[in-house]
Amino acid sequence: MKSNERLKQSYFDAEQVLAGHGKRDVHVLKEAFEKIDGDVESDMYGQGAVIEKFQEKMADLLGKESAVFFPSGTMAQQIALRIWCDAARIRKVAYHPLSHLEIHEEKGLQELHGIESVLLADKTRVIELEDVLQMEDEVACVLLELPQREIGGQLPSYETLEQISAHCRAQGIKLHLDGARLLEVLPYYDKTASEVCALFDSVYLSLYKGIGGIAGAILAGDKEFTDQSKVWKRRHGGDLISLYPYILSADYYFDKRSGKMAAYYEQAKELARLFNGCEGISTLPVEPVSNMFHVHFSHPKETMEALLADLHQETGIGLTSYVKELENGGSSYEVSMGDLYETVPKEKVEALFAKLNEKMKAI
Amino acid sequence: MKSNERLKQSYFDAEQVLAGHGKRDVHVLKEAFEKIDGDVESDMYGQGAVIEKFQEKMADLLGKESAVFFPSGTMAQQIALRIWCDAARIRKVAYHPLSHLEIHEEKGLQELHGIESVLLADKTRVIELEDVLQMEDEVACVLLELPQREIGGQLPSYETLEQISAHCRAQGIKLHLDGARLLEVLPYYDKTASEVCALFDSVYLSLYKGIGGIAGAILAGDKEFTDQSKVWKRRHGGDLISLYPYILSADYYFDKRSGKMAAYYEQAKELARLFNGCEGISTLPVEPVSNMFHVHFSHPKETMEALLADLHQETGIGLTSYVKELENGGSSYEVSMGDLYETVPKEKVEALFAKLNEKMKAI
Repeated sequence: MKSNERLKQSYFDAEQVLAGHGKRDVHVLKEAFEKIDGDVESDMYGQGAVIEKFQEKMADLLGKESAVFFPSGTMAQQIALRIWCDAARIRKVAYHPLSHLEIHEEKGLQELHGIESVLLADKTRVIELEDVLQMEDEVACVLLELPQREIGGQLPSYETLEQISAHCRAQGIKLHLDGARLLEVLPYYDKTASEVCALFDSVYLSLYKGIGGIAGAILAGDKEFTDQSKVWKRRHGGDLISLYPYILSADYYFDKRSGKMAAYYEQAKELARLFNGCEGISTLPVEPVSNMFHVHFSHPKETMEALLADLHQETGIGLTSYVKELENGGSSYEVSMGDLYETVPKEKVEALFAKLNEKMKAI
Repeated sequence: MKSNERLKQSYFDAEQVLAGHGKRDVHVLKEAFEKIDGDVESDMYGQGAVIEKFQEKMADLLGKESAVFFPSGTMAQQIALRIWCDAARIRKVAYHPLSHLEIHEEKGLQELHGIESVLLADKTRVIELEDVLQMEDEVACVLLELPQREIGGQLPSYETLEQISAHCRAQGIKLHLDGARLLEVLPYYDKTASEVCALFDSVYLSLYKGIGGIAGAILAGDKEFTDQSKVWKRRHGGDLISLYPYILSADYYFDKRSGKMAAYYEQAKELARLFNGCEGISTLPVEPVSNMFHVHFSHPKETMEALLADLHQETGIGLTSYVKELENGGSSYEVSMGDLYETVPKEKVEALFAKLNEKMKAI
């Protein structure tokens, strides 16, 4: 068996897992629907109590006039940017070079909407005020992703957010929040969702990251904006006859987990400290600012796959199902803390890291 | 209470309903998932056993090399047409003036893909061979909807289909099947799905019409085509992390109902005869060619709303929750036969129509 397959297998065979909420399987749906009455009527093409009530709840949470449920964040964000571009009659938007739109959407924004992207900052750091001030292109909208997922979930300071927001407002540039993991950064900023969202004209929130729903996203803003977004949702093929399997499960897991984000954040910091205490391992960021971080190994992918597979088998605790190559010859994987961490006894965690450190030293 | 609200209420209060599969509510999901093991793993961004197996099953059914699950037909069909337009370097496609793309998608094809539509035939009839032969515009693709839903579910003859297919093939024009209700027309044509699909380069099938799933669609064709469609699915924001709530329920209801299409068709003919036997009522088509037809009343909307609400209350059997205005001053509603018809005793149906006829005569 190849080392990547061995690692994957050993992860799935582990009795316990340190990060995340657990497997993405049909139990996730069954748990959410267990207490839901079968007589609850489906939403119908964006109408009906099921979707409208949840949208209102999310609008309240985010402090926006209105919110719309979308099947995906990809769809929601492209549409937000299209609306701002049409309004400004400018076909350019600015975001980070590792934005989801730039690297995970097959250039949908360009191919479907004819919108060009201007890349701010470089791949190693978050967008700072200077990047926005120095931008030469005229753009309709700046998109900020909080936290910046592909670099371990880093954040600008809250002051920077306020400054970027004030600058954009003064310049007539719309500011959009890629808040896929918005709830996850609130404990670090020590702000409410609506305080953060007040700095932005439009906001996207994912329902299956820290919340852990099945799929789905929220797009929020003023009513004129969300009304337009519904027309585009229809055009994109996202105005399904029934979205309730996602909506009702998102609502269930929101209620279950939205209050646990501070705990996930503390666990992330604790776990990062344990990783950073091991030879040849560091985390990005060193101290997490949300429930997520990246683990960087100084050894190459194959070495770490074999080592971690052994570790899984010897301890019965799973860390990761994959490791990916880094350009510097090392390797890494991503951690998102969730419900599972507190199910693993502290002494087991300590023993796991003692063993990991031993193995790293022995390479 | 307004007459349209009274009609709606009386329909929902009726003990039995004549058409359809029943209410769109959470029971639909619960029934589908009741026997599915919680350990079944989610699909992940279009990968995994759950989605791949169902796609293979649908490819086999349709006699195509490959099939892709989409969250909606709107998305699937726009993408099919975009692929054919890109291949031909022509940005025009032809379809019926009452095609779903023309009237229900907020011009998504135009706004997202920059594709123009050429309308074939007029609103009162299906596309015939002559319409295609006489087309002056150069188009990348012709789309045929079988049956043509907005005119009561009418069909061209099978010979016409074969002739249009041969002509398009000879001219290098791609032929796409809007087969939202493909399974529903097979008994009339007395053909298999793959026999019909062999006439087309690409095929869309809905999973929540006669099949009665929660939502979702299949797009099928050769592998090069479906591979491209997956890239576009990602761009549209349709490549969700998890589509299993739709896939597993579609699979369940496909197995439950795909063998019942001939029965629904016979019931549609029987019911249409009963309607046509009433004063001031006719069906379109007079003899249905699938499980669906439209009921046309010679009286206006409000008159019929009041009459039908009374009928519901007096008989306990629901016919329709709405009636819509026709341009000729009359009114109409749509019927799609499903699992419910056989649950209503014949004598009750006969008594219902005797009463309906009486009321129509008394206006």
